[in-house]
Amino acid sequence: MTSTVIAFHSGYGHTRRLAQALADGAAQARGDEACLVDVAAIDDTGWAALAAADAIVFGAPTYMGGASAQFKAFADASSKVWIAQGWKDKLAGGFTCSLNLTGDKDSTLGWLVTFAMQHGMIWAGLGILPASDPGDPEAINRLGAYTGLLAQADNLPPDQSPPPGDLDTAAAYGRRIATLAGRLRGTR
Amino acid sequence: MTSTVIAFHSGYGHTRRLAQALADGAAQARGDEACLVDVAAIDDTGWAALAAADAIVFGAPTYMGGASAQFKAFADASSKVWIAQGWKDKLAGGFTCSLNLTGDKDSTLGWLVTFAMQHGMIWAGLGILPASDPGDPEAINRLGAYTGLLAQADNLPPDQSPPPGDLDTAAAYGRRIATLAGRLRGTR
Amino acid sequence: MTSTVIAFHSGYGHTRRLAQALADGAAQARGDEACLVDVAAIDDTGWAALAAADAIVFGAPTYMGGASAQFKAFADASSKVWIAQGWKDKLAGGFTCSLNLTGDKDSTLGWLVTFAMQHGMIWAGLGILPASDPGDPEAINRLGAYTGLLAQADNLPPDQSPPPGDLDTAAAYGRRIATLAGRLRGTR
Amino acid sequence: MTSTVIAFHSGYGHTRRLAQALADGAAQARGDEACLVDVAAIDDTGWAALAAADAIVFGAPTYMGGASAQFKAFADASSKVWIAQGWKDKLAGGFTCSLNLTGDKDSTLGWLVTFAMQHGMIWAGLGILPASDPGDPEAINRLGAYTGLLAQADNLPPDQSPPPGDLDTAAAYGRRIATLAGRLRGTR
Repeated sequence: MTSTVIAFHSGYGHTRRLAQALADGAAQARGDEACLVDVAAIDDTGWAALAAADAIVFGAPTYMGGASAQFKAFADASSKVWIAQGWKDKLAGGFTCSLNLTGDKDSTLGWLVTFAMQHGMIWAGLGILPASDPGDPEAINRLGAYTGLLAQADNLPPDQSPPPGDLDTAAAYGRRIATLAGRLRGTR
Repeated sequence: MTSTVIAFHSGYGHTRRLAQALADGAAQARGDEACLVDVAAIDDTGWAALAAADAIVFGAPTYMGGASAQFKAFADASSKVWIAQGWKDKLAGGFTCSLNLTGDKDSTLGWLVTFAMQHGMIWAGLGILPASDPGDPEAINRLGAYTGLLAQADNLPPDQSPPPGDLDTAAAYGRRIATLAGRLRGTR
Repeated sequence: MTSTVIAFHSGYGHTRRLAQALADGAAQARGDEACLVDVAAIDDTGWAALAAADAIVFGAPTYMGGASAQFKAFADASSKVWIAQGWKDKLAGGFTCSLNLTGDKDSTLGWLVTFAMQHGMIWAGLGILPASDPGDPEAINRLGAYTGLLAQADNLPPDQSPPPGDLDTAAAYGRRIATLAGRLRGTR
Repeated sequence: MTSTVIAFHSGYGHTRRLAQALADGAAQARGDEACLVDVAAIDDTGWAALAAADAIVFGAPTYMGGASAQFKAFADASSKVWIAQGWKDKLAGGFTCSLNLTGDKDSTLGWLVTFAMQHGMIWAGLGILPASDPGDPEAINRLGAYTGLLAQADNLPPDQSPPPGDLDTAAAYGRRIATLAGRLRGTR
């Protein structure tokens, strides 16, 4: 069984909803196991889940043009894994969410790639062409992302925003990650 | 009189419309002089205008996640200016346009900053907070950009797209650039 | 009198040495005032110094491909300044340090630009061409940086590393920042 | 048999030497096939080799903070492959070379990731920790890169520079790419 872990921080619940949609998508893929690790409250069980994972998808809200400090503290703490390259050759992906359509979310996603590369991981992006109608809230990949999942949430409770299109995009990305992780796992 | 040059490449005319709106905004600022240089057809007059400028705003469509090859050819040709640091301490800004809301436009803008830094220039971003209603085509900074101007054009003729909000944002950015260039010029 | 503030976090003292060299350079420029604010221990006096500054130079070690979590926590806390655009049109610069020659330091510097742009600041890079002998530890800009100051420290106490070239580069950058801030201040 | 293609542009021959070292490393991996495609002179045979490849490693010199215009012209021409996502799920890697130790090479490498993500490819970085002695010209990964191969060449003929360490790093990266591509191919 392939294991995908969504390692995320969420400030107000919007990023958590995306994390859940990703995990649901990953679990759908082939009966894979998928779980969430809230990195702001990570404990030994969480680190063990990451160590055992075939794929890790990293997610954080974009605050001031980068991943939240809570997520960065987790990244810095992962240096004890980095020194032994404990996550080497695992599959990686990433996602972020902010109030604006762009709002420097690409900066967060670009850093998540850099972070995964420091860990010797292999990165898979969204793999879905942009929606033909930019901005349709029901559309898959309405924002036109490639490197990972970009989502936008209004200043509303997480059960109302981000819109269905972003959650569906998260689920599709989860399926992609789990499928690719399964292919890599089959050959270990 | 402060001189602002918009150095741009446009594939289908959308980036040219933004360039014109920027120049119009710059010229409004304080009766400043603003002109367009199409870098795909640059000649000695164009290079001279750049050499004499107080501010240069660089613009290119985003193709395959970066500035168009035509713009990059201009950038590479500017290495003869770079070696003498001929544009040092000029003010710089940047803009880009693509079919999607994000579509890796930040990648183009980020490289434009890097390019300007190689020339020793000083970078001014948009300086306008994101629109409160993300995606309203009439709104200033509807896409939530900071580092420069991000615009989105549908697959329509340039007189129909990008929308009014993006053109108004371009004009406002032009005014900002010309105003700051004037302040720097006053002290040379 | 122009005021330059170096807003930094330092894990082991190497980044602090660079911060001090920057401040010394800035103070040299024209009898300007320059001070250090350790953002990991910032208090009301620190925030007030930033509010009053003509220029702010941001600095952090590069950990796991990005600014340290301690610096990011400061950046996230600055959102209360951001919302009022309290640092708008101030001059900004940035620096970072790590054990390796590259080590994804550009990722940190690129994000510092993005962060400054969110605050509506104006960015000045190093403005010094790379050393002709790459790697000479005595040389100014031995690493070939443009967007800001990149330094490299060996695993030695801060009084032995980073090497003289990096400290001299820091001082030169401090002078450049203070000089440009003075020019902008003269026209307010 | 797994096929790895090194798709590169070289201005003065230094990037070509790295491309050859990468291909040699890839061919060593498991008797894999590896070939070079000079993208500045690409023809139908070259495009066919790319279409048939299991892995593509992209390489270009860094000029003015980004990939050379010749490489960008190839990238823009690849939009006809992009529209059909013809390279989807192929493995990708990247490399760049410049005169300086940093010199904004990370900007080129970061864009190569973005470019590969637009094509729906999967990215593998260097996967080798930085050398313990930064700058030793004989050392593997002397520059401390993660996302791909960073090399530095002096202003000397390509048979004298880049140094042995950079060529050995290229060969090791070629082996890694071919090995991972073989694992992914085994499961198609």
